[in-house]
Amino acid sequence: MNIAIIGASGYTGLELIKILINHPKFNITYIANSTGEINVQELHPCLKDVINITVENADAKEVSKVADLAFLALPHKTSMAFAKELLKEGVKVVDLSADYRLELDTYEKHYCAHEDKENINDAVYGLPEYYKQNLKEAILVANPGCYPTASLLALLPFVDFIQEETPIFIDAKSGVSGAGKKLAETTHFCHINENIHAYNPLAHRHMPEIEEKVRLVKNKEFSINFVPHLIPVTRGMLVSVYATLKEEIDVESILEEAYKNSEFVRIRKTPVDIKSTAGTNFCDIFVKRNGKALFINSSIDNLLRGASSQAVVNANLMCGYEEGLGIPKIAYVP
Amino acid sequence: MNIAIIGASGYTGLELIKILINHPKFNITYIANSTGEINVQELHPCLKDVINITVENADAKEVSKVADLAFLALPHKTSMAFAKELLKEGVKVVDLSADYRLELDTYEKHYCAHEDKENINDAVYGLPEYYKQNLKEAILVANPGCYPTASLLALLPFVDFIQEETPIFIDAKSGVSGAGKKLAETTHFCHINENIHAYNPLAHRHMPEIEEKVRLVKNKEFSINFVPHLIPVTRGMLVSVYATLKEEIDVESILEEAYKNSEFVRIRKTPVDIKSTAGTNFCDIFVKRNGKALFINSSIDNLLRGASSQAVVNANLMCGYEEGLGIPKIAYVP
Amino acid sequence: MNIAIIGASGYTGLELIKILINHPKFNITYIANSTGEINVQELHPCLKDVINITVENADAKEVSKVADLAFLALPHKTSMAFAKELLKEGVKVVDLSADYRLELDTYEKHYCAHEDKENINDAVYGLPEYYKQNLKEAILVANPGCYPTASLLALLPFVDFIQEETPIFIDAKSGVSGAGKKLAETTHFCHINENIHAYNPLAHRHMPEIEEKVRLVKNKEFSINFVPHLIPVTRGMLVSVYATLKEEIDVESILEEAYKNSEFVRIRKTPVDIKSTAGTNFCDIFVKRNGKALFINSSIDNLLRGASSQAVVNANLMCGYEEGLGIPKIAYVP
Amino acid sequence: MNIAIIGASGYTGLELIKILINHPKFNITYIANSTGEINVQELHPCLKDVINITVENADAKEVSKVADLAFLALPHKTSMAFAKELLKEGVKVVDLSADYRLELDTYEKHYCAHEDKENINDAVYGLPEYYKQNLKEAILVANPGCYPTASLLALLPFVDFIQEETPIFIDAKSGVSGAGKKLAETTHFCHINENIHAYNPLAHRHMPEIEEKVRLVKNKEFSINFVPHLIPVTRGMLVSVYATLKEEIDVESILEEAYKNSEFVRIRKTPVDIKSTAGTNFCDIFVKRNGKALFINSSIDNLLRGASSQAVVNANLMCGYEEGLGIPKIAYVP
Repeated sequence: MNIAIIGASGYTGLELIKILINHPKFNITYIANSTGEINVQELHPCLKDVINITVENADAKEVSKVADLAFLALPHKTSMAFAKELLKEGVKVVDLSADYRLELDTYEKHYCAHEDKENINDAVYGLPEYYKQNLKEAILVANPGCYPTASLLALLPFVDFIQEETPIFIDAKSGVSGAGKKLAETTHFCHINENIHAYNPLAHRHMPEIEEKVRLVKNKEFSINFVPHLIPVTRGMLVSVYATLKEEIDVESILEEAYKNSEFVRIRKTPVDIKSTAGTNFCDIFVKRNGKALFINSSIDNLLRGASSQAVVNANLMCGYEEGLGIPKIAYVP
Repeated sequence: MNIAIIGASGYTGLELIKILINHPKFNITYIANSTGEINVQELHPCLKDVINITVENADAKEVSKVADLAFLALPHKTSMAFAKELLKEGVKVVDLSADYRLELDTYEKHYCAHEDKENINDAVYGLPEYYKQNLKEAILVANPGCYPTASLLALLPFVDFIQEETPIFIDAKSGVSGAGKKLAETTHFCHINENIHAYNPLAHRHMPEIEEKVRLVKNKEFSINFVPHLIPVTRGMLVSVYATLKEEIDVESILEEAYKNSEFVRIRKTPVDIKSTAGTNFCDIFVKRNGKALFINSSIDNLLRGASSQAVVNANLMCGYEEGLGIPKIAYVP
Repeated sequence: MNIAIIGASGYTGLELIKILINHPKFNITYIANSTGEINVQELHPCLKDVINITVENADAKEVSKVADLAFLALPHKTSMAFAKELLKEGVKVVDLSADYRLELDTYEKHYCAHEDKENINDAVYGLPEYYKQNLKEAILVANPGCYPTASLLALLPFVDFIQEETPIFIDAKSGVSGAGKKLAETTHFCHINENIHAYNPLAHRHMPEIEEKVRLVKNKEFSINFVPHLIPVTRGMLVSVYATLKEEIDVESILEEAYKNSEFVRIRKTPVDIKSTAGTNFCDIFVKRNGKALFINSSIDNLLRGASSQAVVNANLMCGYEEGLGIPKIAYVP
Repeated sequence: MNIAIIGASGYTGLELIKILINHPKFNITYIANSTGEINVQELHPCLKDVINITVENADAKEVSKVADLAFLALPHKTSMAFAKELLKEGVKVVDLSADYRLELDTYEKHYCAHEDKENINDAVYGLPEYYKQNLKEAILVANPGCYPTASLLALLPFVDFIQEETPIFIDAKSGVSGAGKKLAETTHFCHINENIHAYNPLAHRHMPEIEEKVRLVKNKEFSINFVPHLIPVTRGMLVSVYATLKEEIDVESILEEAYKNSEFVRIRKTPVDIKSTAGTNFCDIFVKRNGKALFINSSIDNLLRGASSQAVVNANLMCGYEEGLGIPKIAYVP
């Protein structure tokens, strides 16, 4: 199947290209970027002698002539405008931005006015472990945020056993690639190196995304308190969920049961690290409790499971392929 | 005043030397190490042309002839045996090991049988903000662990306002120097670099130390749930305390009030980072809440405030000097 | 074709497994390690749910029953003893140790007495750009050292144009994985992090390897002066060759011409970096001169082009497959 | 003596403040920055509770009222205009920019037209080991570049013994703080981390600075070929000089002799590392040869010996104080 990648200059665009080059079914026929017509090797010198394709200025009609599905790695707001056009042309869309992730109200409260009210309600949230059936029939998929992916995969199996009146805390640590390529004081090497700090504590836009999905999947309301950090690594994400159980239950069994059929969730017997998942689509999870105090610990590659490889998994499901077709499983360790 | 440093080859021994070289009142007259007689420059090549002194084999009688106070940077158990001898010889002791930090029962449960039951009850816990008066009269000071220092300074001001029945969670991140110099898979560069992971979650020996001190200082029992992490930086420590408030109170004012007279606690208006305290004795603290969900965020240099500079502050107090005499305040930024 | 991997616990063993899992022609039938019988996932937790095979105690006869070619990722000396046995059993060998890289005299001078004088003269040096024809007929291949690979690919095209009486200098920088997994002060995180230093300057064992190969390939004797460094990255290698030209020639053209048919050498127009080759078998090269002063700059992944992927390229050639079959070309950037 | 710091927001401005806060003779009376009137703690949050002073808009007349000497940590060109005004007002100047480092011709060839031809010829090059007598009488000092400092201290003792007709190569590695605070692709964390690359090879503006000073100090012309690199550390600099000797001489003795009276040059018996000098004004040097091939290896802190602490040494000499007064000697190790 022919596919297009719209937005190729960022980290997630590059990861999409790298996965799709070797995918046994998907065939890249169109790459677009706001830089206009240059060779993709100029955007990403690491692709020299690997792929040779000219980048276009994005045009929905042109996409529809050469591709059946498009991955959108565009900024918020830009994305919904272009997705709308593509859907009108009959092109399936996997959108990596936040534009279709939330219910309309939540979106407009935390982002801006929505420009594609026609399609937002039909978007399927692309967390395969919880939305697989819907994904198989989707024409528009909202690829989850990186933090919500790791947080929800850790938290959802335990929601029924957690005290509803006590706050849930999520302490999350992300590699700097999660902040994107744009230049900022907070991505300067000398700021990040030998440092660590929280940012937007209890105020990050992924907090309502997690709350909403817990409510939609489990029909329960919780106070989710989310504190993200930047750590001095390029990629990888570690999430620690802290909650209070109703009773002193067997948390390992609950976790094993929840993911016994999941190809891309691995249950670990020791605390997870980010190196074992970096480079792959796996989410590793470890759980432990002390009395009623619950600690769930998950790890993903923020650019892959948190963005590009999960997008390709979603595309696989939308197109009737095996979930794991062409999806990276081999970590970059060491 | 003449002082001795017993245990000079590790990171905290080196930091003691570096602070004491420039201290206006303390004079290093004796350095001991199990390596036996070598020049301290052989132990630490960075001290070439900075200090020129021969390291001795530790001998309590010899110490008592040339020094009035000794800093012990020795492993657990080794330390209490030597402290006992020094005290008998009339030498004041600041012990950087865990040997005198806990009540006898707690110590023997989490470490081993105690060898100095004579002195353990007289040891003063060296957290100056909460034990200043006792420290002024102490002859034996137990220097706190690095994690308890950062955790207690964050938590103690809020203890009276936290729900007692709900667990408190502490997510702590430490630079690798906290693991010491000994060679281990977990301190190999390729293991730590581009990685992050928890270790001993809900089972670390600093957890009972925090619980005990909260009980002793505030007369309250809490379930403290402590999860430490190694991060890919050499020094620095970030602690996040998560707790549930009884009521929606003004947390900033409580924090300001608690430390208004503290020379070495700085209240921050934005999340703390480790670079601003690394190289100093400061503890930076930030606090924020979301409804009753409380987030307290503290940062210290694990080798200084978490060990060697706090030890010298304690020695200052024991000897009647100003708390801040000769204590580092200038961070290594950038 | 069925293949065996002997020595699976180190970094190069892991990289061999990772490449060969997805190789379209080679099939892993045997993995051995001195740990004895355990699942390979216990050796390398990152392989959980990726490959499931029991590790054996190495036995040459057993290898010969299930495999036609073996990769040896063993320490020096251990390797030649086992290679000898395998060759006797008719198994082809790609040896990643130093045991067959040098002429007998050079080897015995810099390593130890050689135990397989029978086969050493038949070993082919596995640098495909210069030994391709011999490799196609080889039954024993000596995989080059990582430093010699990057140094020779940079230097060899210019040897005829360099003044023979003036020393050539090679300043090389390697990621820490090049030092292997064993624990040492020099691989402790706190030693490497925020640091850089040379080691064994003008005395490293890869220096005679480079000198010998220049002599054998180009029939010229040079004074090669090699200074390797450890840098605070896990993988990747940068080599700078400094030499004096006989005349002010067009160095870019010479380089382009030398590698115009090479699939895995990329000529760069700007100084090379290690990120663009890390994760791949590429060697990137840049050249510039100032008068007669020549600077040649090359970059490889020390574990791949410097060890495991080059080993698989050699195996491809030995078995009549395309040089690039199953060989990684996609860098890990960012 | 009262001093002013002009240009306080950059890395070298901060380092000047940090050294001068504790200097026994210099007293900071004036800090200026283009940000205009804010508290210096807003520029540098790490200075909270350390120094409390309002930053001014730079004004030469105001400086002359409150200070006798000014440190200029300003960009090229900006600096010479302001230095000129200060000198007219009778204020001594230590200029950390490049504006007075070179002879007029060299400067104008590599930078721009010079705006202070009146004073440029009176400027003394602030490398104390080679210009001490002139510095004692200077009213305008040009603080050397970081690369030239480390390169010249390594190279100058050997100039008389090096073949003049063969090129000298300098392979230099700098921490990223050397690139300053400004945002650029090449200082983004994800670009630098796990990477290393040369920049401006054989074309950096410090190359003519080194050539000129070799000529002026030793009256010899050499082809200096300089290749700088950015390495993934914040601070520190390692320089390797490669040259060809006329004869096989005793290089260790030459080095020892050259610096036997130098307080801030330490001769090392093993290759130097950057951690042992980072945080100090020391330059560590190691030398080795292989036949006539010479390798000289030096290390400095790029922000201290390469900028701010060397500036204060120069000020000490200009004011008749001891060279080492208030100068940092204690490395930040670990």
